[in-house]
This record gives sequence, C-alpha cells and structure tokens, in this order.
Amino acid sequence: MRRGFYIGRFQPYHNGHQAVLEEIAKWSDEIVIGIGSAQLSHTLENPFTAGERVLMITRALQSLDCPFYVIPIEDIRRNAIWVAHVRSMTPPFDVVYSSNPLVMQLFHEAGMTVTSPDMYERATHSGREIRRRMLSGDEWQNLVPHAVTDVIDEIGGVRRLQQIAGTDE
Amino acid sequence: MRRGFYIGRFQPYHNGHQAVLEEIAKWSDEIVIGIGSAQLSHTLENPFTAGERVLMITRALQSLDCPFYVIPIEDIRRNAIWVAHVRSMTPPFDVVYSSNPLVMQLFHEAGMTVTSPDMYERATHSGREIRRRMLSGDEWQNLVPHAVTDVIDEIGGVRRLQQIAGTDE
Amino acid sequence: MRRGFYIGRFQPYHNGHQAVLEEIAKWSDEIVIGIGSAQLSHTLENPFTAGERVLMITRALQSLDCPFYVIPIEDIRRNAIWVAHVRSMTPPFDVVYSSNPLVMQLFHEAGMTVTSPDMYERATHSGREIRRRMLSGDEWQNLVPHAVTDVIDEIGGVRRLQQIAGTDE
Amino acid sequence: MRRGFYIGRFQPYHNGHQAVLEEIAKWSDEIVIGIGSAQLSHTLENPFTAGERVLMITRALQSLDCPFYVIPIEDIRRNAIWVAHVRSMTPPFDVVYSSNPLVMQLFHEAGMTVTSPDMYERATHSGREIRRRMLSGDEWQNLVPHAVTDVIDEIGGVRRLQQIAGTDE
Amino acid sequence: MRRGFYIGRFQPYHNGHQAVLEEIAKWSDEIVIGIGSAQLSHTLENPFTAGERVLMITRALQSLDCPFYVIPIEDIRRNAIWVAHVRSMTPPFDVVYSSNPLVMQLFHEAGMTVTSPDMYERATHSGREIRRRMLSGDEWQNLVPHAVTDVIDEIGGVRRLQQIAGTDE
Amino acid sequence: MRRGFYIGRFQPYHNGHQAVLEEIAKWSDEIVIGIGSAQLSHTLENPFTAGERVLMITRALQSLDCPFYVIPIEDIRRNAIWVAHVRSMTPPFDVVYSSNPLVMQLFHEAGMTVTSPDMYERATHSGREIRRRMLSGDEWQNLVPHAVTDVIDEIGGVRRLQQIAGTDE
Repeated sequence: MRRGFYIGRFQPYHNGHQAVLEEIAKWSDEIVIGIGSAQLSHTLENPFTAGERVLMITRALQSLDCPFYVIPIEDIRRNAIWVAHVRSMTPPFDVVYSSNPLVMQLFHEAGMTVTSPDMYERATHSGREIRRRMLSGDEWQNLVPHAVTDVIDEIGGVRRLQQIAGTDE
Repeated sequence: MRRGFYIGRFQPYHNGHQAVLEEIAKWSDEIVIGIGSAQLSHTLENPFTAGERVLMITRALQSLDCPFYVIPIEDIRRNAIWVAHVRSMTPPFDVVYSSNPLVMQLFHEAGMTVTSPDMYERATHSGREIRRRMLSGDEWQNLVPHAVTDVIDEIGGVRRLQQIAGTDE
Repeated sequence: MRRGFYIGRFQPYHNGHQAVLEEIAKWSDEIVIGIGSAQLSHTLENPFTAGERVLMITRALQSLDCPFYVIPIEDIRRNAIWVAHVRSMTPPFDVVYSSNPLVMQLFHEAGMTVTSPDMYERATHSGREIRRRMLSGDEWQNLVPHAVTDVIDEIGGVRRLQQIAGTDE
Repeated sequence: MRRGFYIGRFQPYHNGHQAVLEEIAKWSDEIVIGIGSAQLSHTLENPFTAGERVLMITRALQSLDCPFYVIPIEDIRRNAIWVAHVRSMTPPFDVVYSSNPLVMQLFHEAGMTVTSPDMYERATHSGREIRRRMLSGDEWQNLVPHAVTDVIDEIGGVRRLQQIAGTDE
Repeated sequence: MRRGFYIGRFQPYHNGHQAVLEEIAKWSDEIVIGIGSAQLSHTLENPFTAGERVLMITRALQSLDCPFYVIPIEDIRRNAIWVAHVRSMTPPFDVVYSSNPLVMQLFHEAGMTVTSPDMYERATHSGREIRRRMLSGDEWQNLVPHAVTDVIDEIGGVRRLQQIAGTDE
Repeated sequence: MRRGFYIGRFQPYHNGHQAVLEEIAKWSDEIVIGIGSAQLSHTLENPFTAGERVLMITRALQSLDCPFYVIPIEDIRRNAIWVAHVRSMTPPFDVVYSSNPLVMQLFHEAGMTVTSPDMYERATHSGREIRRRMLSGDEWQNLVPHAVTDVIDEIGGVRRLQQIAGTDE
C-alpha cells in the first residue's frame, strides 16, 4: 500500500491541482488531500470555507481512478509542529507531493520523502490569478473543473468575493 | 439532493455507529460524518488520532451504498458557536442525525432539523465499553467492524491504551 | 471618582448578586460588573450566553442609583495573567469586591484593594441551587429579579437546561 | 422592541461614530455597540485597550436619548463563525448598521438585515487620520467628543502612541 | 555529547526530583529539564508560576556537576503533537528519562529512547503530598531542598495555597 | 540581589546581543534572558526554533561572569497582558534592559524600571542583516559568536533559510 499526501489551500481548486492529482494517482494506491488554512474563509486570499472546498475537490475528482481522502487542516501557526499536526489528522502516508518550499523543508526535516510534481501551466493556473479574474469580472471558469464552477455558483462565491473587496458594482 | 449529518468521537468506530449510518444511508443522497474532538488522542477517553479514526470509518463503510464525507472537527470549546464551526468545515447538510442532547439542542437553536436515530444494542456498543474491554484484555473485536480491528492492530492501539493507563502488564 | 469592580459568572443573575450590588452602589461612584467565563454557554454549569447575562443584569439594575458597566470577560485559563486581562477589558477601578478566594488572591498579589461583601442568604441564593431547581422543575423564580425571569422565559432557558441534561420529561 | 447593532474598533471613538449612533438612535429602542478587536492595544493601529474604549464611548454617549450596551468583542480570526461569536456576546438584535463590506457580507450570509448608515465627513473622521495627527503632533481634538479627549489625556494616550512609534521627540 | 531530557510539573520541586536528576547527571553530558504546564499557577494542583519553578530548580541544582537547561513548556493540549512541541522549545536530546506512562508512550511513538529512572521514596516525595501538608499546616520542608523552602517563603507560597483553598485560618 | 531582564528574538543571537549582555552583567547579580516569539521558526524572519536559540545563547555566554537564565517566551498577541505573561514565566527581575519602544512602553506602564543599553554597531549587527547575508551567500560568521556559527552549522540553518526562501540554487 502506497499512500501519497498532497496539500493546498485550494482557493479555489483548479485545473492545475487536478492535473497534479491525476499524476499522483498513477503512483499511489490512495491519496490523502489536505485542505490547508481550513479555518479561513471570507477573505480576499481565502474566500471559501473548508466545507465548500471539500465539496469542490470531491466532485471534481469523482471519476479519479484512485481512492482519496479530503481532510481539512486548520492552521497551527507553529512551523516546528506543523508536520505532527498534519499527521495526527490524516491516515498515514509515505510520500509527500509538494512544490511549496516551506512544506518541502518541514517534511524533509521530519525525515519524510518529498517529491515535487510538475506544475501545470502555472502562470494562469493559480488561485491568485483566478481570484483576480473573479474580482475583475474576467473569464475564470475555463481554469477550473466544471464541478467547481457549479459549487461556486451555488454558494454565490464570486458575489461574496466582490462584496468583501468592497468593489461590488 | 438530501445530505445528512452525523457526528461522533468514534473512539473507536463500532457496530453501533455502523448500524446507524446504514439506516441514515436509506434516507440520504449523501452523508457527512464529523469526527468530533479531532485534536484529542492518546488519552483514556480518546485513544485514537483523527487520522486513525478517518481510516477506521472509511474502510468500514467501503461498501456502503451512499457517498459519504469524513471530516475531522476540532473542538472549539464554545457551545454557542459550535454549529457555525461545524458548518464551516463541512459541505452543507439538511438533516442532523444525533442522539446527543447537547448536539440536538445546539442544532435545534440554530433552526435545523434534528432526528434521533435508533441506537443499536447500546449497552455493549459504546466506545466506553469497548475501551474498558481493551484495557482489561477482554474480547472487544466482535463489537467493531473487521476493518476497525485491522486498523487498531496496525497502530498497536490496544497496547497504546494499556500503556497510557499505566497497566501494561 | 471611586469605581468598584464586581465579577461573577451570573448563571443566572439572582437576588444575592442584586443585594451585593446595591450595597456596593452605596460606596461607589461607578460600578464595573464583569461577566466571567463569558465564552461558555449551553452547559449544565453555564447554561446562558454572555449576551443573555448582559441582558439579565442590565434590566435587573435598571433602577440602581449608580452608573454601571457590564463587561463580558472570556476565560484566559492562566491565573497569573488573569488580572491584567480583566483590567485590559474594563474601565480602571479602585476597589475589588469579591468573596471568591482565588479572585481575592490574584487581585491581592497584583497590589489591589480587595473587599469581601456580605453574602445574602447564600444557601439558597446560589447559581447552583437555582439551576438545580430549574432542572427538577421546582420553584426558582422567587430567587431572581423579575427581569431575569422574563429574560429566561424569552430565551427558553429552562427548556434548554433540561434538554442539555437529557432529562427533559 | 427594536434593537440595532453597530460595531467598530473605535481607535479612537470620534465624531463620525457619534453622528452615526445619533442617527441609529432615532430608529432603535436600544443599541448594542460592539468594540471589535477588543484584545488589541498598544499598537499603531490599535493604541487603546477595550476598557479605555468602553470609557470613551460611554462618556461620549451620556446624553444619548436611547439606552445602549457597550460590549468588547475579542477577535476570533475565523470569519465563518464570527457572527455566531458576536451574537453569543451580545443581547439579541434585529438590525445591523455597518459600512464595512466584510461585516455586511457575514451578517448577510447569516440571514440578518444589514443597513449602511451615512458616513459623517469620512475623510477626516477616521481613526487612521486621528492617529496620524496624534503621531505628528497635529490638532486632533476637534475630531472627537470632549469626553474622548479627557479619557485620552488621563491615560497618556498620545504619549503612548508616540512612544510605540519610536518617534517620541 | 549525550543530552538527557527530564520533565515534570515541579509543584513544587522536591527531593525526589533532586535524587533522579543526580542519577541522570551520572549518565549525561548535559540535562534539559522541562517545566510542564508552565502556563498554570495559583491552583490547588499547580500553585507556582513557571518563573518560580525555574528559580527553585536552578538554585537547588547549583552544585550539580553537570550543565543543565531549565525550560518552561506550556501545555499544547494535543498529545499527538506534544513531542514536536517539546523538541521545538529545547536543545536536541538523546534520551528521555520519565516514569510517566503517557510521556513514555508519546516519546516511544516518536521513535525516541525512553528510560525509567528509579523513584526516590515515592509515597512521601510527591508534589501532591507536599501540597497536602502545606494546606494542613504539616511539616513539608524536609521533603524539599533548602533552596526550595527559601523560594516558597519569599513568594508567600504556603499562604497563597491556603488562600486559594479558602481554608486560610 | 539585583536581577536584570533582557529580551529579544535572537534570530540569530549575534555580537550585538553579546556586547549588550556583557554590559548588563556589570550591573547585575543575575540576568534573565527572554527568547521572544518562542513558538516561531522556519520563517524568513524567524528561522530558528526556541531550542536552537537557547543553545546559541547558552554556549556563547559560557564564560560570562554572571549567572543567567534563558527562558523561551511564546507570543501572547495581546500587548496589555504581555508583561504579566513574561513575569509569570521568569524569575522576578528589577530592571528591564531594552531599546524596543513597545517593550519599553509596556514595562513602563506596568511601573517597572526600564533602561536602554547602548547598541553595538547596530547597522551590521542586526538579525535582519545577518539573515540577508545568509540568504545571499555573503559572509555572516564574523557578526556572531563562534558558538553560534557552530550551532547554525550543526542544524543546517543556512540551508534551511535558503530552502524556505525558495532560492536554494
């Protein structure tokens, strides 16, 4: 049994995440997906709740050919104990897939195997870019799985983001 | 879409929980399972980590004929905001299934529909009884799904509980 | 200007508190009333929210001939810094009125003047006794000001307490 | 009974707040005033303690023709549960008066009525501008009620702010 | 370089702790002494502050022939991350000396070497027994190093404990 | 007995700190050294854990002719209670040595004596400058005591900082 771990804030979950997870699925028997900063929502950087992000990810991966767990992880604001915190909230995993330098360093110091997945069209496929487009009214739907568009529509996610930004014209 | 919510500490997950969830599955399109006191582990009342409990539940429900989410929920130690906390961590749900008087009252005050499922052989099928049997070396395996026995064996769960109790003979 | 400080959990506010505050009013230009354990509610020991307790106290003291402040104080769970915490949340005060040994000791170590008010019919006029009567269905209304009975009725306070206790016959 | 809610950080309380509250008083039987970020003080953005702010507000509103409550509200750093937190600390209210986009959105998602009061000479009547004047030694007293000047003088508020800024010439 | 780790609450530090540390000193180049529950004080179980306990230990060990560190460790209330928390606050250590079943289990699960030191006259040499004697006015001074008696006298420790207990005759 | 208090984040401990402490040693019988933001590590501003900083300081001061305590102090994020927090974690002290405006103001408001030590070649001897040099690969070793270089080498501190910065070429 080989279980891989992948963590992100998924604000929102997009095609770049999807591409990475499809890649990880090839090498894993099971995947644990951690939703970071789970306690944050309704900010410009973190508009969606953990529950909304659980929904986006689960629906978008419905046809993934690999069992997966989606686990909200609240911030603990202490890097030195963050790995222990993550591990207490998740089924045990063998490999960490991450391109985040801090995440890589923390798992490396904890003695775990860390692998950097290839990024998928990173310039456009980033949460920051997608949130920017939502705010400015640009097309963002083509950057996320259909299921994610549906979830964001249902919860009025774009309207929420614009309202928070105080630019709700 | 009718989504039901069920919460417990699952220390450990047992046949009583399984029976309730199989009942809830008949009435729901999807089930959200909250793991309460997710941050606790390695105590006499809460021996298992959230990640270990995620594993028990997911494996035991592998053949359940209803999609489900398993979400660790850390305690927030403030009853008046607990429902909002739970809802921020979970996909939206319509019905709460619970027999816990406090949980029922808190969701009721929040204006949600609460239903009490029938309990399954409650005297023996309780976490407290199972932990008691683990400590005293009695048979407990017949009270939990096979998958749970496997998880507890893998992590040395009985040994951990006995060691914590200082009764490790 | 002589400002007195009085703190309690007020679960609920009763005639004993009222008698003490009427006494303190004689010696003070203003009174600061701290609501302790403000973050707790919906438990057997602490059934009412801070906001509900603010309402009870303010209404019951409506005709007190001394200006007063009612300030919710969340627990900080560290006795050595509790006095500094209280003082940061309240207008400055000169005298502490308390019969609680820990409160007295903490303010004493901080170099403040502490005075023990006479207690009013303490055996019956205690939050514990009133909550016990609410649970068992006994008469409790005669132990609290009329305004408090009204608030508890409005919020369904007795029903809430009984439900939490799981003894709601 | 119609109770309105108004929240701010009040660093410090100024004539703009006063004008808004006088307006709200016309439409309300009672007003609940929440002091946000109550736990913060002694910073450039938040120089005054909650207790000092309680004092400023209470004194400045002494002749307001509407009963009011002044309630310190500590930050909870989780937007999704902030409304529940506020409501647990305050008497129940019917209308929220706010011009803050995040506050408006959070109460709106909670299903409450939110109204935007007219702002009073906003360019000069802002906490930021008043703190800037305090730091640079400019006239700020004309922007706040007299009672607020008195409180700030008593506690050495301007000196505190300048000292924290390290520009205490 | 062989560094040993020893942790206790030291409420108060007594001859039993001293005997264990003198034993550990024989096997170590340096000792790290962790003061557990550092944030607690002024309770019946935890009367002394972390700073007071630092003072007791440092003075009592003044002539120990082994360099040592005394580090207050605040509780983190999550067993699964407690070892990581301890290690982030202390210089790295190789061996854990403990007789506490939970401490032993947590370090064991983290893959560290744990050794149980012999206890010294455990029945009388326990914090609980010493605090009991302080409360009842019995002789306790013979159970602690002289330096500890001095510290407790300076801070009025017995008076504090009796006052908290409400039995200050 | 005259005990002085000195606090810093020591990220890392450098010759400027050493010079100040040697000066304080002349005026003190004992020194209490507080390690601020003890819970932080693995960030660009705070790369080292509290335990690593304890090690740096203790080794660098090995030949100081004045007994000293090194105490990690976790942030409490509330300035108004920070002094009480510090005092609960440390042996009692009489004089505070600090050049930090906020630290000076907070101890001043608490009624304590605060003295500003002369700074030693401040432009180069700052944690910020040393971390900048570590990141850019410049010479930094001449700005810290030898013992600190050793500790940073042992833990791979420069590599950690570069990795976190994502500039690890």
